[in-house]
Amino acid sequence: MIKGLSTAGLGHVKNLEELIILASENGFGSVDTSGQELRDFAEEKGLENAKAFLNEHEVTIGSIGLPLEWRHSEEQFKEGLSTLLEDAKIASEFGCTSCCTYVLPATDYNAAHFMALVTKRLRLCAQILNEYGISLGLEFVGPHHLRTAWKNPFIWEMKDTLDWIDAIGEPNVGLLLDSYHWYTIGGTIEELAALRPEQITHVHLNDAKDVPLEEVLDNDRLYPGEGIIDLVGFLKTLDQIGYKGSVAQEILTKEPLTEAANSLAEKSGKAYAKVYAAAELQ
Amino acid sequence: MIKGLSTAGLGHVKNLEELIILASENGFGSVDTSGQELRDFAEEKGLENAKAFLNEHEVTIGSIGLPLEWRHSEEQFKEGLSTLLEDAKIASEFGCTSCCTYVLPATDYNAAHFMALVTKRLRLCAQILNEYGISLGLEFVGPHHLRTAWKNPFIWEMKDTLDWIDAIGEPNVGLLLDSYHWYTIGGTIEELAALRPEQITHVHLNDAKDVPLEEVLDNDRLYPGEGIIDLVGFLKTLDQIGYKGSVAQEILTKEPLTEAANSLAEKSGKAYAKVYAAAELQ
Amino acid sequence: MIKGLSTAGLGHVKNLEELIILASENGFGSVDTSGQELRDFAEEKGLENAKAFLNEHEVTIGSIGLPLEWRHSEEQFKEGLSTLLEDAKIASEFGCTSCCTYVLPATDYNAAHFMALVTKRLRLCAQILNEYGISLGLEFVGPHHLRTAWKNPFIWEMKDTLDWIDAIGEPNVGLLLDSYHWYTIGGTIEELAALRPEQITHVHLNDAKDVPLEEVLDNDRLYPGEGIIDLVGFLKTLDQIGYKGSVAQEILTKEPLTEAANSLAEKSGKAYAKVYAAAELQ
Amino acid sequence: MIKGLSTAGLGHVKNLEELIILASENGFGSVDTSGQELRDFAEEKGLENAKAFLNEHEVTIGSIGLPLEWRHSEEQFKEGLSTLLEDAKIASEFGCTSCCTYVLPATDYNAAHFMALVTKRLRLCAQILNEYGISLGLEFVGPHHLRTAWKNPFIWEMKDTLDWIDAIGEPNVGLLLDSYHWYTIGGTIEELAALRPEQITHVHLNDAKDVPLEEVLDNDRLYPGEGIIDLVGFLKTLDQIGYKGSVAQEILTKEPLTEAANSLAEKSGKAYAKVYAAAELQ
Repeated sequence: MIKGLSTAGLGHVKNLEELIILASENGFGSVDTSGQELRDFAEEKGLENAKAFLNEHEVTIGSIGLPLEWRHSEEQFKEGLSTLLEDAKIASEFGCTSCCTYVLPATDYNAAHFMALVTKRLRLCAQILNEYGISLGLEFVGPHHLRTAWKNPFIWEMKDTLDWIDAIGEPNVGLLLDSYHWYTIGGTIEELAALRPEQITHVHLNDAKDVPLEEVLDNDRLYPGEGIIDLVGFLKTLDQIGYKGSVAQEILTKEPLTEAANSLAEKSGKAYAKVYAAAELQ
Repeated sequence: MIKGLSTAGLGHVKNLEELIILASENGFGSVDTSGQELRDFAEEKGLENAKAFLNEHEVTIGSIGLPLEWRHSEEQFKEGLSTLLEDAKIASEFGCTSCCTYVLPATDYNAAHFMALVTKRLRLCAQILNEYGISLGLEFVGPHHLRTAWKNPFIWEMKDTLDWIDAIGEPNVGLLLDSYHWYTIGGTIEELAALRPEQITHVHLNDAKDVPLEEVLDNDRLYPGEGIIDLVGFLKTLDQIGYKGSVAQEILTKEPLTEAANSLAEKSGKAYAKVYAAAELQ
Repeated sequence: MIKGLSTAGLGHVKNLEELIILASENGFGSVDTSGQELRDFAEEKGLENAKAFLNEHEVTIGSIGLPLEWRHSEEQFKEGLSTLLEDAKIASEFGCTSCCTYVLPATDYNAAHFMALVTKRLRLCAQILNEYGISLGLEFVGPHHLRTAWKNPFIWEMKDTLDWIDAIGEPNVGLLLDSYHWYTIGGTIEELAALRPEQITHVHLNDAKDVPLEEVLDNDRLYPGEGIIDLVGFLKTLDQIGYKGSVAQEILTKEPLTEAANSLAEKSGKAYAKVYAAAELQ
Repeated sequence: MIKGLSTAGLGHVKNLEELIILASENGFGSVDTSGQELRDFAEEKGLENAKAFLNEHEVTIGSIGLPLEWRHSEEQFKEGLSTLLEDAKIASEFGCTSCCTYVLPATDYNAAHFMALVTKRLRLCAQILNEYGISLGLEFVGPHHLRTAWKNPFIWEMKDTLDWIDAIGEPNVGLLLDSYHWYTIGGTIEELAALRPEQITHVHLNDAKDVPLEEVLDNDRLYPGEGIIDLVGFLKTLDQIGYKGSVAQEILTKEPLTEAANSLAEKSGKAYAKVYAAAELQ
């Protein structure tokens, strides 16, 4: 499993090039980014040089974000389709095979109708991504405070998300599995062990404060090993079921981090090294 | 558009053979029934004789009910699949091309998760039916009292049902459009006029009492022409958009009807004749 | 059924605006064009004026051509997807609901593998078009000389094309039914009568010379009524089954037509008026 | 990867119980069988005892055969659907997650039309199997003599089969990868290394005689290690990409084997032990 870095948890990072360098210097093998960042990077350096830069730094592109608005009107959704096409294209040129989005656990819309609409929309996204060899990862979001942040409950359980993926019905849709959300839904090692690796498109690794489960906030995350999530069991199990993709940090915080990116990246690197070692992984 | 009869509104009808006779004697061109009734009919008379009987009476099979339980557990759903296969087979042998189910406007389950589950289940039903040249009709159910009869709102609007049909994504899924439900959701002639005929799998024709819309009860229906629904506009518009299928009576009442079936069928036949004439249809 | 005009059979037509005028002046209610022409037209006049121009001339957009190359490499196919998106968008803004492509009856590729590839490609096209309310029409191509023009037979029968449409499995895929191809496959009135209107996305109306069926050439077509195809039966049957869309001329000829477009359009208009009258249609 | 046994290569085996015992005694961890055999086994012993018997012998059900005729008429296909349902049910009760069928490399039908038909049919099979948590494995068949055994070429390449699986478009369809067929199409280790494990539903392990590639016969197979296929590279690569399922023997021979099943099973067990050891696998 590849250690992955994103800008979330690094404070200010200038651009993708800097993120790649920070990853490379601190033991990470992949970075999460966006189609837009990839295009900027390719334009600045030239595509071949940009790819060579990644190779030299032994860093791959772990995942990009789904660039369109699928949670509101049909108009907004349709407007984003051309960007999705462009992002899929540039991502595939960089060998990236994962594109992810998060799923809020509540909605102001009628939940059943919303589910029907977004099932159809994400199916189209999946089909477009599939044309470029890219999978779509759906991240269930567990913190309790978000479950009531909008009028109607949507879904936040892992098993419900898997049922939804079945309803979407495309071969290239899987979970974005975040240790933080898995913790907030009371997820178990047994549930992870029951997954097939192809059901997991991407993984996030974050830790949580020792507060009652219902009080865990989405934007109050800790670096791996600083908190109370059983990340060793989490990583070991993913390895055992055969997951081989990226495991990316995504430290969301209440306040912007002010420490320098390189020192935060060093901290992240050490945190990863420690939990990987404890899980007997490289 | 074919005038259709079901047992709902006829009191006690012995079997399918009697229903066919009642239809034939009172100006109806189709009957709604079940796969089980069709099998019983075919077993009793022999398949070829049963088909000949329909031909002689100039009556076709308008629609059968979806025979399985798709609203609860996976186990129940799976148990019903073999019956679905058998029903699809016997229906296709009788030339029936429509199989319908109703959609309750509320659910005790998490509405979003339930929508995902039933989207997948009904997709499988549609695919099996398609193998036999049969379409699946989904009936939205509008009465206000049912919208809160279970814990969470599901869907009851025609447009939401059409979005759901899109999410199911199979070519042979359409609406079962009941004038009664269309009335209870405040449906307009314009909305009907915007439909394409292939979006309508089957039609029910019922009338409603002159009570406030919110007080219209699902099981308190009137024969066509006895109430206040604009059935003339309803029928005219369906004809104009090119709908050519069955328009079947389904009079649900609080108490079982005790009048003899043949006099109720006569009443129905006259009611149909009157609204069809007013709509300048045959 | 709407009489439709395309530039095929009109010699040189300057642009879409001229085609609309020619249609309007000669009794046609729709024109076939391309997404590119629609964009040019909208850019030149402004979208609202362009739409008003169509309204004033009582002409609608019957169909656009599928703008991408789905018959060769994955690379070519993917390159065309952004144009497909743009074309779907502009077509939907003009209220056009049909996008068509033709299917050659033979291929230099392994026919089975090619069928698998194009099934997947056209499914993606259909899904994208569906997002914009547009159907995809597939035109089977019957002339005998084309069946052996490439190494391996593909498909040319109407029923095989319908089976393919089933395999594609999207609700918005149908036939582009050309009277010329229907004639060259020895199509019958009974086969047309067995179609449901939603199986027909678009119609072409052309006539054929009185030569042996095997010698009918794809690019040697006559104006309606000049040849030996039973166009009256063809039109009557389409009307009877409830087809309400466009019926567009597409006169392919060996040599470019040199007569002035307005006199050719007049000729077409009279030819259409004659066969429509003979079929007792307006 | 689980060593698997089937009756092909064992001469006469009385029933599933005997096959399980033979597997257990000779180092195999799974057996391939049919839904019918599973039902017979469950009826004879009782389902719970039958499952306990497997557990005690540390043997699982590797795969069952697809029980219906998908290669000919619609009628035959439809007739088999109820058996498919029953087989899926009993297989899932035994924890079996794979159902396989082979794909002949030629056909007497029009190859393109046949591809469209069977794409639709196998999609329905996949959807039904998916309801029971079972994947559908498609076995490409490579021997040269079979490519011309029927009138028109179909597909036999691994990459074409993967394209077909894409066209079927269901998440639970993959390859049945047979080392013998991989050898006959000139397959490479690189091609195997490029597979994702979820693209492989099941594996067959057989060896081939040292004759020119074009002369390798489908029914002239050798036990693993007796021939010239690079089975060590084959197994190593499947292990490296993360395949964890069964690798089952399927020795097809010209003449029925007359040696006793237990001595043939012992021979198979030793052959497997040897190639697994050479591949540094357990």
